[in-house]
Amino acid sequence: MSATILAPSRADEGRGPAYATDVILTGDRPTGSLHLGHYAGSLRSRLALQGQCAQTLLIADLQALTDSSGRAADVARHVMDVALDYLAIGIDPAQTTIAVQSRLSALAELTVLFLNLVTVSRLERNPTVKAEVELRGFERDIPAGFLCYPVSQAADISGFRATLVPVGEDQLPMIEQTNEIVRRVNRLAGAPVVPECRALLSSTPRLPGVDGRKASKSLGNAIPLAASADDIRRLVRAMYTDAGHVRASDPGRVEGNVVFAYLDAFDQDLTTVGELKARYRHGGLGDMALKRRLEDVLEGLVAPIRARRAELARDRAYVMDVLRAGYERANAITEGVLRDVRRAFALDA
Amino acid sequence: MSATILAPSRADEGRGPAYATDVILTGDRPTGSLHLGHYAGSLRSRLALQGQCAQTLLIADLQALTDSSGRAADVARHVMDVALDYLAIGIDPAQTTIAVQSRLSALAELTVLFLNLVTVSRLERNPTVKAEVELRGFERDIPAGFLCYPVSQAADISGFRATLVPVGEDQLPMIEQTNEIVRRVNRLAGAPVVPECRALLSSTPRLPGVDGRKASKSLGNAIPLAASADDIRRLVRAMYTDAGHVRASDPGRVEGNVVFAYLDAFDQDLTTVGELKARYRHGGLGDMALKRRLEDVLEGLVAPIRARRAELARDRAYVMDVLRAGYERANAITEGVLRDVRRAFALDA
Repeated sequence: MSATILAPSRADEGRGPAYATDVILTGDRPTGSLHLGHYAGSLRSRLALQGQCAQTLLIADLQALTDSSGRAADVARHVMDVALDYLAIGIDPAQTTIAVQSRLSALAELTVLFLNLVTVSRLERNPTVKAEVELRGFERDIPAGFLCYPVSQAADISGFRATLVPVGEDQLPMIEQTNEIVRRVNRLAGAPVVPECRALLSSTPRLPGVDGRKASKSLGNAIPLAASADDIRRLVRAMYTDAGHVRASDPGRVEGNVVFAYLDAFDQDLTTVGELKARYRHGGLGDMALKRRLEDVLEGLVAPIRARRAELARDRAYVMDVLRAGYERANAITEGVLRDVRRAFALDA
Repeated sequence: MSATILAPSRADEGRGPAYATDVILTGDRPTGSLHLGHYAGSLRSRLALQGQCAQTLLIADLQALTDSSGRAADVARHVMDVALDYLAIGIDPAQTTIAVQSRLSALAELTVLFLNLVTVSRLERNPTVKAEVELRGFERDIPAGFLCYPVSQAADISGFRATLVPVGEDQLPMIEQTNEIVRRVNRLAGAPVVPECRALLSSTPRLPGVDGRKASKSLGNAIPLAASADDIRRLVRAMYTDAGHVRASDPGRVEGNVVFAYLDAFDQDLTTVGELKARYRHGGLGDMALKRRLEDVLEGLVAPIRARRAELARDRAYVMDVLRAGYERANAITEGVLRDVRRAFALDA
């Protein structure tokens, strides 16, 4: 569970382990409830970092609108879902700030200022933006907000003076873009008013959906963080294993086998998982037996999250209080950064 | 002086005269002190409209930064210059709100939201942006803030619920872009939360610089609003007339003659100007006599502005108070619009 804190995977500057002095900014777009892929990939590393570093979880509703402005009502609803998910897994609002992006006006002001420090062609060359433009099929009709979202992300990161940002390999260009902007701000200011940041890469491979494809809410192939016992059973039963593994006695493949991907991610008994892999490869272990073990493992993980989430969902006032307190803390920090950045732009009149 | 309020020059919707119910937003980029070209083209029509309609003058410092982020300190200094110029010509802060753009955080927040309602290709097609990109020689290195400035302008206009925006012909695409965004916001909101706006076109042709080229501070060919008597004399003497008009007895051309352009703009005695034109065309009127008349006309216009500006410049505290009061009024309006627009984006949580 703590294996997600990494030594740098390469000698690059800009990546590295977490230190007690680090300020971490991370978060999620509120486009749905979170699922086990989020848990394996990032949520549990946030739990591990909680109390070790200053940490803010930003519910990035404005960023969600950059490709979902037509589904604004859904985004708004999912802000509450994501907050419930955070609290249900054990994020402690006394230790970790949970804040909603759109309430922090300083982040919009920083975005507008930073837009003057980046060229259009630089944004168009951003590999992450290019890949996502292709993924979403925008072609020439890219919303301007989408092209500019690396700038908004730089505003979020700088706005919290974050030094460490958990990202996937595919998001490294975002860190680079942020640091370019940070250097320009500091050059304007003639002093290091905002820090450069490093990427914190996760060691966990991306958890697939039950059908082996990328897990996604819209494909219905992800297991929600607070799935019911029935949903867990149904989704585990539907998991792709090895199409060549017909009888229990046949030798089977472990690589690309979704059940083993989930066992690797969530079964804490590594010795037993090692033995199961050996038996599966050799022949003599049926898919049903394997899936029953995974069901137990997942139910063990999810049951307390589900119970806590249901309890929290009945106490919306408490969740609103958490978001209000997070806003107060986040607003004080981001307004302070805005003051410094405004001064760099000689806007202190 | 009141001829700047126009009946629509074409039957187009989106252009029109000013009505008492109109809300006018106009202003200037603080890139220098204002000059007589600004006075003829827009400042005196603002004086004429003062008290007739609600009117806000926005000192657009953020917009100035979109192509001058390297000259931020100059922009900051010129905010005060522009405020002094407004007050010196007779803008009454009790009747007209004077506000500094960068202090109004709601405008940045509206900009960030509106960026989701416009595509990049739509911004690239904007003829005003295209022309200005060419003018500034940006080519592929357009700052993102510059590409997005029509969106920021739409935020300014909507942020004040402005219905009438004084512009030149070349700025009409900006009005169109604003109304596209306004319609999208209203569609999202399911109600007309922000009004569409109309262009108020000036009847005054653009006043040339003393050398016949476009008046510009950097070319030194403009006559500052608070020019000294010596500067007025020097600049009027330098004015281009008709290169073929060598002796006073020669017939001369009135069209393209800079002195007549200024007399047309500022000499209130239209009968005499008509007679002078006739004599000049016929032959028998020397350039020096003509220029002496213009000197008197301009000194008559400028002397009280100069005196009042010098007086105000000694009372910075008063000017700061004016800007503070303008901020209070403008902030209340723009925050109200932001609340409505946030609700349209379902961001009222």
